[in-house]
Amino acid sequence: MSAQEFLIQKAAKTERAMAAYCDAWGSVPETLGQAIRYSLFAEGKRLRPALVLGTAEIISGDDAVALPASCAIEMIHCYSLIHDDLPAMDDDDLRRGKPTLHKVYGEAVAILAGDALMAMAFDIAAQCSDVRILREIAQAAGPAGMAGGQVMDLESEQKRLSLDQLRLLHWRKTGDLIRASVRCGAMLACAQDAELAALTRFGTHIGLAFQITDDILDVVGTEQALGKPVGGDAAHGKATYPAVVGLERSRKLANESVAAAIDSLKPLGPKADPLRELAWFIVERKS
Amino acid sequence: MSAQEFLIQKAAKTERAMAAYCDAWGSVPETLGQAIRYSLFAEGKRLRPALVLGTAEIISGDDAVALPASCAIEMIHCYSLIHDDLPAMDDDDLRRGKPTLHKVYGEAVAILAGDALMAMAFDIAAQCSDVRILREIAQAAGPAGMAGGQVMDLESEQKRLSLDQLRLLHWRKTGDLIRASVRCGAMLACAQDAELAALTRFGTHIGLAFQITDDILDVVGTEQALGKPVGGDAAHGKATYPAVVGLERSRKLANESVAAAIDSLKPLGPKADPLRELAWFIVERKS
Repeated sequence: MSAQEFLIQKAAKTERAMAAYCDAWGSVPETLGQAIRYSLFAEGKRLRPALVLGTAEIISGDDAVALPASCAIEMIHCYSLIHDDLPAMDDDDLRRGKPTLHKVYGEAVAILAGDALMAMAFDIAAQCSDVRILREIAQAAGPAGMAGGQVMDLESEQKRLSLDQLRLLHWRKTGDLIRASVRCGAMLACAQDAELAALTRFGTHIGLAFQITDDILDVVGTEQALGKPVGGDAAHGKATYPAVVGLERSRKLANESVAAAIDSLKPLGPKADPLRELAWFIVERKS
Repeated sequence: MSAQEFLIQKAAKTERAMAAYCDAWGSVPETLGQAIRYSLFAEGKRLRPALVLGTAEIISGDDAVALPASCAIEMIHCYSLIHDDLPAMDDDDLRRGKPTLHKVYGEAVAILAGDALMAMAFDIAAQCSDVRILREIAQAAGPAGMAGGQVMDLESEQKRLSLDQLRLLHWRKTGDLIRASVRCGAMLACAQDAELAALTRFGTHIGLAFQITDDILDVVGTEQALGKPVGGDAAHGKATYPAVVGLERSRKLANESVAAAIDSLKPLGPKADPLRELAWFIVERKS
């Protein structure tokens, strides 16, 4: 199966589960329910669900056990996009080919829809009945993870960062939740210690490869493919890999990260092939 | 012990635990760490910690088992205050006698500090190793709870609500998390089913009494006692009990809710006296 087919299959499972979960939530103010669905069911790559479910599947042959974690992590990702797009943050008008949430529902509802999605994510994660999963996700989303990365990102504007500082920023902003996706899938499938260690290294490397590629696409991608304007990073004076080390070296670093990721999978043998495909997809994608 | 002494004792325990937790979190961007502490350690009544720990104590004689839940719920409450104060929401300049977080650190950091606090809250709640606690808190914070209540609150501005609609708004905005405080304390102390049912009723009634009293204090309170300007609800054209049923009937309804709350505690006998004191404190407080 190609990485694209794999992503589509895992996305469909996760979207069905998220829709059922939203429907079952009970009485929610109408505007808020619409805003949550507008963001959650916009077209996305659903990379994190593919990593959660794919990892569980290669370990135990079944991904069902990881479905709540897949939904939870995608909801955390979705909340973070809503808040990142706000006028006080990156002030973006377009996301996944549609107007950003605050453009449609206003800032207040956008802030609250993000908040609600985070709470829903932890409720659904709790359905795994494994507190390790909750802590993994909470720490990846928290002040040393995504929220901290976004603060560093804002503070980096118009500043010259070293490569080490940039790596830390990217790690927090994106890498931590990508690694958590792999680790949650592994833990829920009862991976052995050596497997979990190998997958943790894999997750670390693809997290970096993903964010470097994001930086590159903001320079060389097209608005049509990305579903959002390009060149925003440069316009904001953001610290990115192309800005710090140039485009060519950025591509080299992304490819090296993927190679390191794939190397990490050696102890797992051929059963890890779907993850190898996903790793290549991460740097070869156009959106 | 008076309600005041009880609150101070439980606040001290919770604040010590929250401080230790913040210190142990690991590497956090400096600005974000400062912003989190600025909000979390502002002077507050710490009513929710008193309810979590007090309920656990009257059931099992020991409140230590409920300390992570007490911290988590206070952190959720704190995040909600930060986001409610934002310019896109209530646009408040003063909170607990200090400038609101966005006035000091800017909107972006305020949004992210709120987000970080929510993630931290779920991480610390997971330390209870009881997924019921996580789901209780997540549902109280989510789209049918606090986040939904805040959307209703914004949508109620300049509108005339019925008493039923207002009760639902208040229930979501404040009541749900107050009831969750009582229920988490009870569940962690292994309350029997009948005790949990009685305490759930108690939590429902004091949640309503609390919000009616908040509405009343916004009319008759003083800025000095409240640590924030009074009259904001009327200025925003918000739906409040005094606006809908008048001040006198609001007082009557608050007192009736406290009486119903205290009546709910009958099955627990005299050991529930600290909760009875807290219930009276809720309507008699000046801040």
